[in-house]
Amino acid sequence: MSVLLALHDWPIEIWRERFAALLPDMDIVALGEPFDRRSVHYAVAWGHPPRSLSGLPNLAAILSPGAGVDHLFRDPDLPAVPVFRIIDTDLTTRMSEYVVLHCLLHLRGLLRDQANQRLHRWETDYLQPAAGDVRVGLLGFGVLGQDAARKLAAVGFDVAGWSYGGKEVEGFRVYAGAAQLPAFLARTDILVSLLPLTDETRGILNRKLLSGLARDGRLGRPALINAGRGGLQNEADILELLGDGTLGAASLDVFETEPLPVDSPLWDHPSVVITPHNAAVSNPDAIARRIADQIIAIEAGEVPEGLVDRSRGY
Amino acid sequence: MSVLLALHDWPIEIWRERFAALLPDMDIVALGEPFDRRSVHYAVAWGHPPRSLSGLPNLAAILSPGAGVDHLFRDPDLPAVPVFRIIDTDLTTRMSEYVVLHCLLHLRGLLRDQANQRLHRWETDYLQPAAGDVRVGLLGFGVLGQDAARKLAAVGFDVAGWSYGGKEVEGFRVYAGAAQLPAFLARTDILVSLLPLTDETRGILNRKLLSGLARDGRLGRPALINAGRGGLQNEADILELLGDGTLGAASLDVFETEPLPVDSPLWDHPSVVITPHNAAVSNPDAIARRIADQIIAIEAGEVPEGLVDRSRGY
Repeated sequence: MSVLLALHDWPIEIWRERFAALLPDMDIVALGEPFDRRSVHYAVAWGHPPRSLSGLPNLAAILSPGAGVDHLFRDPDLPAVPVFRIIDTDLTTRMSEYVVLHCLLHLRGLLRDQANQRLHRWETDYLQPAAGDVRVGLLGFGVLGQDAARKLAAVGFDVAGWSYGGKEVEGFRVYAGAAQLPAFLARTDILVSLLPLTDETRGILNRKLLSGLARDGRLGRPALINAGRGGLQNEADILELLGDGTLGAASLDVFETEPLPVDSPLWDHPSVVITPHNAAVSNPDAIARRIADQIIAIEAGEVPEGLVDRSRGY
Repeated sequence: MSVLLALHDWPIEIWRERFAALLPDMDIVALGEPFDRRSVHYAVAWGHPPRSLSGLPNLAAILSPGAGVDHLFRDPDLPAVPVFRIIDTDLTTRMSEYVVLHCLLHLRGLLRDQANQRLHRWETDYLQPAAGDVRVGLLGFGVLGQDAARKLAAVGFDVAGWSYGGKEVEGFRVYAGAAQLPAFLARTDILVSLLPLTDETRGILNRKLLSGLARDGRLGRPALINAGRGGLQNEADILELLGDGTLGAASLDVFETEPLPVDSPLWDHPSVVITPHNAAVSNPDAIARRIADQIIAIEAGEVPEGLVDRSRGY
């Protein structure tokens, strides 16, 4: 029985060693080398070439070493087996660090203070709102969104969530679906996008949606934080909205094209903070352990956490 | 009965209106205008001229509209009446916002990401530690330090405190006094100074103390955050320690001279984040309400919170 590593552009030997140590009863093979296709029961895949997972007659599951699985569904012939994604506390924790950092950065006007620092300018004639005066809205309220929400609330922010299907989460108002999206946006001063990328969410961070954010907030103008997927955002719209004052600032960790092209006007925008898709770079050892645990659970006849609903795409 | 406003460089009329509304039975008078010295029962003072509070025979208390009271004790003839400082949840909350923001900023290497942004450079070949791998030490573990500690712990940091006298605080190890200071420093990757300024603490953030910080931490080099008082820090030492690699970075909200002189080399240091003493700028209405509540409590024969121990100076 073998595990196939289909990890595009990842350092395969390091991952082979990790999985070999964690799954000593299995062979670890990799795309691009000869292997017995009938022996493959599990595929660990990230951005694999379309159809490269076809013709594996004993494949039992496909496992994504990340929270997102949109990279898998780019394959139109993805085998019809269960797909699992990572639900890793380390990854969740890191994402929340990013979200809290960037919400506080916009709350406290750090970009203004840094611009003043470059000018050797001591400016104090502004009144900063407190966290309790500023409404953060989490667009996407799954495991990541709820963890970030609890930490944002601990720091003092006024937090609510939105999810496609709605849900009951103690301590937070959760808006549901397209019908409640306008009300959610209208009460949001800092919008944090943690949505998965699906056919429904592609390009959703556009002029139409972002124009619905609160105009009456204590920050003056709303801010956008996108730590979900670059495919969610329309960068031309975002630049226009920053230019016309509809948006005050943005923290972007993900981009339509990654790495962000060197000639993108986002790099030089004074109100944009760019990070290189590092909001939730998980510990490789933790990822390998989670996937090995998922495989061991499936072998034991259990259904591990992280099962993806293929009809929703996440 | 009157309340004397001795608020150096503050907009007096705005404060007179606030106190007049909150204390309708009292007269509100101000330094620099004629008033009956025998009528003054309370003085609200910030940086008042030395001796300007002398000769007030009925003075019952001096109230500081801030968490620090070192500005009062610059007056060698400060009347021997009880001194109260503000313990304001709004001020505490804002200080914690600043502390969590700057701890996360150093944890996540935001200055590195921002330097890369200026170069249009997408750099990902580093492994970020998680908050749980990084030890924050709060130098000063009173109301402000404990609130910040709880919020830092909620975000995932490994947090401990140090205080002059030591204390029991559930959930945190608290190091006590000079004897335990070396052990506290040796386990600290990010040092957060929230100390009051007293004869004992003046200049304490110097080469000797800062050289004791952890050399084995996951950040590589320790970081300093000073949101206490500028008089705590030796800026020449801090610049040298940043230069020789003993310190990796610093966030400074307070300075030996404020405003920070335009020719200070701190402004242009790439590893220093300067903010203009705005870590905990409180809401003026909240400050006025707290002080009015303190006065009302004293009038009712109670001892309100915030009583300063004059022998310690805080």
